[in-house]
Amino acid sequence: MRQAPANTARPAPVSVLGLGAMGGQLARALLAAGHPTTVWNRTPAKADALVAQGARRARTVADAVAASPLAIVCVLNGEVVHRILEPVGAALSGKALVNLTSDTPERNRRAAAWAAEHGIAYLGGAMLMPPTLVGRPEATILYSGSRRAHAEHEATLKALAGRAPYLGPDAGTATAYDVALLSLYYAGLAGMVNAFALAGGEGIPAQDLAPHLDVILGQFPSVAVSMARDIDAGRYSGEADVLAIHTAGLAHIIETSRSHGINTDVLRAVKGLVDRAIAAGYGDAEFAGVIEEMRA
Amino acid sequence: MRQAPANTARPAPVSVLGLGAMGGQLARALLAAGHPTTVWNRTPAKADALVAQGARRARTVADAVAASPLAIVCVLNGEVVHRILEPVGAALSGKALVNLTSDTPERNRRAAAWAAEHGIAYLGGAMLMPPTLVGRPEATILYSGSRRAHAEHEATLKALAGRAPYLGPDAGTATAYDVALLSLYYAGLAGMVNAFALAGGEGIPAQDLAPHLDVILGQFPSVAVSMARDIDAGRYSGEADVLAIHTAGLAHIIETSRSHGINTDVLRAVKGLVDRAIAAGYGDAEFAGVIEEMRA
Repeated sequence: MRQAPANTARPAPVSVLGLGAMGGQLARALLAAGHPTTVWNRTPAKADALVAQGARRARTVADAVAASPLAIVCVLNGEVVHRILEPVGAALSGKALVNLTSDTPERNRRAAAWAAEHGIAYLGGAMLMPPTLVGRPEATILYSGSRRAHAEHEATLKALAGRAPYLGPDAGTATAYDVALLSLYYAGLAGMVNAFALAGGEGIPAQDLAPHLDVILGQFPSVAVSMARDIDAGRYSGEADVLAIHTAGLAHIIETSRSHGINTDVLRAVKGLVDRAIAAGYGDAEFAGVIEEMRA
Repeated sequence: MRQAPANTARPAPVSVLGLGAMGGQLARALLAAGHPTTVWNRTPAKADALVAQGARRARTVADAVAASPLAIVCVLNGEVVHRILEPVGAALSGKALVNLTSDTPERNRRAAAWAAEHGIAYLGGAMLMPPTLVGRPEATILYSGSRRAHAEHEATLKALAGRAPYLGPDAGTATAYDVALLSLYYAGLAGMVNAFALAGGEGIPAQDLAPHLDVILGQFPSVAVSMARDIDAGRYSGEADVLAIHTAGLAHIIETSRSHGINTDVLRAVKGLVDRAIAAGYGDAEFAGVIEEMRA
């Protein structure tokens, strides 16, 4: 019989629907924390390794949701969530449903409305980490929706990620934070690839450039704080580092990229925003002024 | 008479050409460190405040370069550098010229070739900080070109930025690092603005989102290290966080952006690279695999 950690209540049963890269890690983290864990996946073979580690295999979605008071769903997208859960709405009634599928805030709100019709306590969640960090105390999953579901299952949720803040009753809020944060994530990743591509074009190995990236990455946190203050205040008054300067810098990067045959789509998109903001009268603004063009 | 810091040799005379946002700060930092500082700017009034702080005003570029064994030029772009220095090549002969103008590696190499013809020791430099951090011990300016000029004037260069590494004899290297780092900088800034715009569209104030950005920003340094390793090795084997997953995430961000009327140019440029990399067979690669498409 599975041993519960000595310092907590007996870990509660949980069902995990979807065993892709993320879902598989979620089930693994629950097993590691001692939760009786039922797993389901469209392709049953994906459950084999988890079953060998102690998970119970559910043959159907209905079987899976019947097994636990809490179901966690993590599949490809919101349409798949709808397709697999729609037939089991009645079976989920009175239970909690945590949706960790990457999706839009709007589809999370629609899923929450569907859940409310069926008496299901719904939580939208957003995982702010790669699969390798699932289950770690420093990992973060944001939640919003049913306050009761969050409070009741908080210990279980913390087995998935040590930081599990509740952001409010709107089921779309966690995903809203997620898409916002992901837009920074992907822009940053693209920027890194761009930096390595440019360095490579100049004969500089990526690992020679990498330590110097810290000079840039180290500036981002304080830039984010001052940018947020300026944006909330609607004031972008720059003293020195203004858009009129930035467009010249961007032009040099684009010119150098072109000379090495490196794709300039991302940089030209950024420069386009900067140039349109300048044309709209924000030439003396800090970079944050670009938001007026981004919203236009 | 100006007092030299007790623990160093007498600060050497320096001339600063160009007193824009950056140039003005450079001259200020030199004055603060006790250097006899001669300043020149196309629009002479920009020198007034510096003269009040102890700088000597040069009426002409020739006057400025005659005043010191080291001239630092920081103007709008490489064409302006050429235009103002071309007539004073002979006067600079035997002296050192440090070019901190933001420019391409190629134009720095051409400037170095011109300097070599005139017997000028040329250093290309790249300032990795905003004007507000000029003169600070934690600020970084990268240098490449004349090793002798760097060694001879290192104490002076450290008055501009405490970190002043010499990257090698190719005068374009410092600028090559610069354009690479700037491509990350601008992509990151655009990502932050995008994040704040998306949050705003969902009714979340920028300052509510800002603390959560640290979850993303905190992942960048380790992502950069592993990305550099993969790129140098030409291996992008992903186990979980692969391009096929990223394209779905990007689609959600773009859909949510559109629903709030937020510009999607940057995100669509990133998604375009990801999708073309997937089409080229990198669907199972980590994000670093995008570099194959970026170079194509």
